[in-house]
Amino acid sequence: MILVNGEPEGRVSPLDRGLLLGDGLFETLRVRQGRPQLWAYHWARLTRGLGHLGFPEIGETEVLDEIARVATLPACMVRLTVTRGEGPRGYAPPAAPALTRIVSAGPALDDAAPTERESLSLGWAAVPIGVNPALAGLKHTSRLEHVMARRSWQPGWDEAILHDALGRVVSATQGNLWLREGRTLLTPPVDQSGIAGTRRAWVLEHAERFGFEVIEAYPDPARIERADALYVSNARIGMTPAVLSEGDKRGPAWQDDPLYSMGIALHEAD
Amino acid sequence: MILVNGEPEGRVSPLDRGLLLGDGLFETLRVRQGRPQLWAYHWARLTRGLGHLGFPEIGETEVLDEIARVATLPACMVRLTVTRGEGPRGYAPPAAPALTRIVSAGPALDDAAPTERESLSLGWAAVPIGVNPALAGLKHTSRLEHVMARRSWQPGWDEAILHDALGRVVSATQGNLWLREGRTLLTPPVDQSGIAGTRRAWVLEHAERFGFEVIEAYPDPARIERADALYVSNARIGMTPAVLSEGDKRGPAWQDDPLYSMGIALHEAD
Repeated sequence: MILVNGEPEGRVSPLDRGLLLGDGLFETLRVRQGRPQLWAYHWARLTRGLGHLGFPEIGETEVLDEIARVATLPACMVRLTVTRGEGPRGYAPPAAPALTRIVSAGPALDDAAPTERESLSLGWAAVPIGVNPALAGLKHTSRLEHVMARRSWQPGWDEAILHDALGRVVSATQGNLWLREGRTLLTPPVDQSGIAGTRRAWVLEHAERFGFEVIEAYPDPARIERADALYVSNARIGMTPAVLSEGDKRGPAWQDDPLYSMGIALHEAD
Repeated sequence: MILVNGEPEGRVSPLDRGLLLGDGLFETLRVRQGRPQLWAYHWARLTRGLGHLGFPEIGETEVLDEIARVATLPACMVRLTVTRGEGPRGYAPPAAPALTRIVSAGPALDDAAPTERESLSLGWAAVPIGVNPALAGLKHTSRLEHVMARRSWQPGWDEAILHDALGRVVSATQGNLWLREGRTLLTPPVDQSGIAGTRRAWVLEHAERFGFEVIEAYPDPARIERADALYVSNARIGMTPAVLSEGDKRGPAWQDDPLYSMGIALHEAD
């Protein structure tokens, strides 16, 4: 089911600024029994984005209700999209936008604990994403550069390391990237490009409790090859181990990994 | 009138990738008597974009027919938008996309020769656009950074100079930027960010005939202040003179400007 401003099977105006200008935000939610996991993190990012873009506020209760309406399976992924709605021609936004909300559900991974999943095979995306601190971190809908990076994947890859236009490794294509070096976790900053993932935020907040220190830095390829383990995080997969698609000696040893208990805690977090 | 895949008053699917991911291209056309001005330039840019994004080809005759259908006034501006259409969830594009075409008309400037227009008052946009050679030049629909730059204009400005995330002046917000220094025209390159305007392309091709040399370079603010004259170009305004909104001693002297005859030729070009 898809809801457009609460209407089942609604359609969207061809003058919607989300459609014409990528003028919108979205959240990808793992929903269990109608409740989005880590909702507080999603809601915080979304409301920060709404403020940054100059959108009016939206009602949390109304949105949660729409999410529950589309989440008809016990476990599913829900995409919540909010655009600036219709506007006059050109870049200038309307003074009082009437936002468009689109809420749709799709299948989730089966709900097995991450320990039972295979490591992701990780390539190197051939197309960079842009550098722009003015929009970095936000999960906005102007995502053509991620589409182009995704198109550059080769067969057999489950994910790909993404670099920015200045050559810095900034994330995976569909999630944030992590290197484990002993009890240190390294993840690239998201203030120049990339998306500030909700699972990334959760790990930053909880790592210490599991005995890890987190540093934010751009890893060069040699460091990625040398790290004790690699992970990718997003709402769909939680924190999942990854190995480079070529010449990686690191086996999938998730169950023996020092990060295992944190990965399970993230998987089960509310 | 608006046509969606040729249908008057059509609506768009909430699963359209243009809406969800900014996965599309557009052209803004000045249409006179149903015919888009400089169509060859628009079509060349659009087909280059379609190829770059991996979209299938579209029919030129069909598109021109739709443009003529919506262009019911003797002079109007038509926006042609092409998105990748519906797709599965996520960034990965469908193997065989069914594109969405949206064609809509709006008012043009009155068709007075540019000599009779006032100079644009030009501010400095406070928000940068990103750097990404992978998408630079294309007129794609992932335009949130232009929306944000446009939002940063101050009252009284008609246009604003846009810089990129590395601080380089790359264009105006809604068009390309030009500095005249004697018989030399300077315009920023569009291979790192910005849009390769059709009027920019026309000037690059025709300047020599009017006795101008063109160089592509990033002008620093001092050079912008010192130039003999400033212009902004786009499909709507052609080539229009501009003065800085604050402290600019250069009067609007378009009729006496060495560029006058070229501006008129562009205005009248087919």
